[in-house]
Amino acid sequence: MTREELSKMTPAEVRKLIREEKFTEATYGLCNGYVQCNLVIVPKDIAYDFLLFAQRNPKPCPILEVLDEGSREVKFLAKGADIATDLPEYSVYEDGVLTGTYNNIEHLWRDDFVSFLIGCSYSFEEDLIRSGIPMRHHEENCIVPVYNTNIPCESAGVFKGNMVVSMRPIACDKVPLAFSVTDRMHKVHGAPVHVGDPKQIGIEDLSQTAYGGGVVTIKENETPVFWACGVTPQAALFAAKPKLVITHTAGHMFIADRKNGEIR
Amino acid sequence: MTREELSKMTPAEVRKLIREEKFTEATYGLCNGYVQCNLVIVPKDIAYDFLLFAQRNPKPCPILEVLDEGSREVKFLAKGADIATDLPEYSVYEDGVLTGTYNNIEHLWRDDFVSFLIGCSYSFEEDLIRSGIPMRHHEENCIVPVYNTNIPCESAGVFKGNMVVSMRPIACDKVPLAFSVTDRMHKVHGAPVHVGDPKQIGIEDLSQTAYGGGVVTIKENETPVFWACGVTPQAALFAAKPKLVITHTAGHMFIADRKNGEIR
Repeated sequence: MTREELSKMTPAEVRKLIREEKFTEATYGLCNGYVQCNLVIVPKDIAYDFLLFAQRNPKPCPILEVLDEGSREVKFLAKGADIATDLPEYSVYEDGVLTGTYNNIEHLWRDDFVSFLIGCSYSFEEDLIRSGIPMRHHEENCIVPVYNTNIPCESAGVFKGNMVVSMRPIACDKVPLAFSVTDRMHKVHGAPVHVGDPKQIGIEDLSQTAYGGGVVTIKENETPVFWACGVTPQAALFAAKPKLVITHTAGHMFIADRKNGEIR
Repeated sequence: MTREELSKMTPAEVRKLIREEKFTEATYGLCNGYVQCNLVIVPKDIAYDFLLFAQRNPKPCPILEVLDEGSREVKFLAKGADIATDLPEYSVYEDGVLTGTYNNIEHLWRDDFVSFLIGCSYSFEEDLIRSGIPMRHHEENCIVPVYNTNIPCESAGVFKGNMVVSMRPIACDKVPLAFSVTDRMHKVHGAPVHVGDPKQIGIEDLSQTAYGGGVVTIKENETPVFWACGVTPQAALFAAKPKLVITHTAGHMFIADRKNGEIR
């Protein structure tokens, strides 16, 4: 099946292929218009700290759904979806170290697991493109540039750290539109956190990205615009080195039945 | 000191009067332009359930700040304020029953208390009035009308129940403006949840308010507009009958150093 064909399938159809392990790749470009989510699964003993970290840092960590303790069943975002089988790849971290990747985690499931589904910038990129603001990393066919900053997050229990941001070059005369489009999407990172001078937020060199982010061209008439990034909670998680955390593997997201326009 | 004089004082000045128990009354009209908050204090063992209830029901339960376990110190909303002394009156509930009201709760404080400060409709009423939409309950000098509905909240652990709403009659031609003004204030209840026909949300008779809400006139050219109300989490709390909960006494709010316009 081509990615072009997959882009037109419904989320339920694609999740079925994923559950049957007939599709195990990254989900970019799939099910156009539908919400894709980051996944974090933690044992209940640190779930309060993680939920509080998200409450205190809603821009980098916009939680769209929290499953009940021990439950694999998604309710709001995709009724009946199974969080242990419906993502193409999972990463398991023990004491902060990646110890394995799996296409499903049924064999690892525990009754004290709490699953968090977290908004992703794919949702606001769709709105930006529809507003006539192109995404340079799409044009240059790479992952969005991602950077560590010196902007502190609010700590919560075991979780602390600085904000991670993504960067998109925007034509200066389109910056106000980019603000207004993303400001109303407060459940997926909202308005930018910084515009213009990367040094002010601790980024010395835009060619040095973090977490495997790409490097993109910034043209003469453009300025770099920075949004809070969903990698922030993962960075805080890994720094805390909890005994066990399971996340989606980068790019291998959960695809919801909700449309991007519903997540406001 | 008159309420007119108090309306012009800073939050820090008023909190000092409150801490010294020189002011122990309701806080309506005080410190114009500043955020006032509902308070809920629960023991840590049910704090996760309460935080999750709020996450799942952000419109009726917009959390503005959560203090660290055992901490009395407010950080974001009013640096250095003391949550155990800086409200004019507290209500203590044991097993869902009111067992006492106090002007401070220092003698009751426990190291496992978690304090939640929750947004209040005072903040969006200010914006509505500035937009030329008068508040009938102000004109008729009573508390905003409040009703139980049949709109279910999403349950979380021990907390469940239906949404409680407040009602403001709005001239039909001003309803779109009222939506647009409050929609952007998603941290204080956001856009209305219902317009026009109270029966559809289980309200048979607008003259029968709940929780001591007033009854207001609805004029010929007006329609009743319903917003999610901050009484919802309290109603869910009391229904769950936890061993101990402390809240502000109705109308006796926490006054923050943040301006209403900052809470977006």
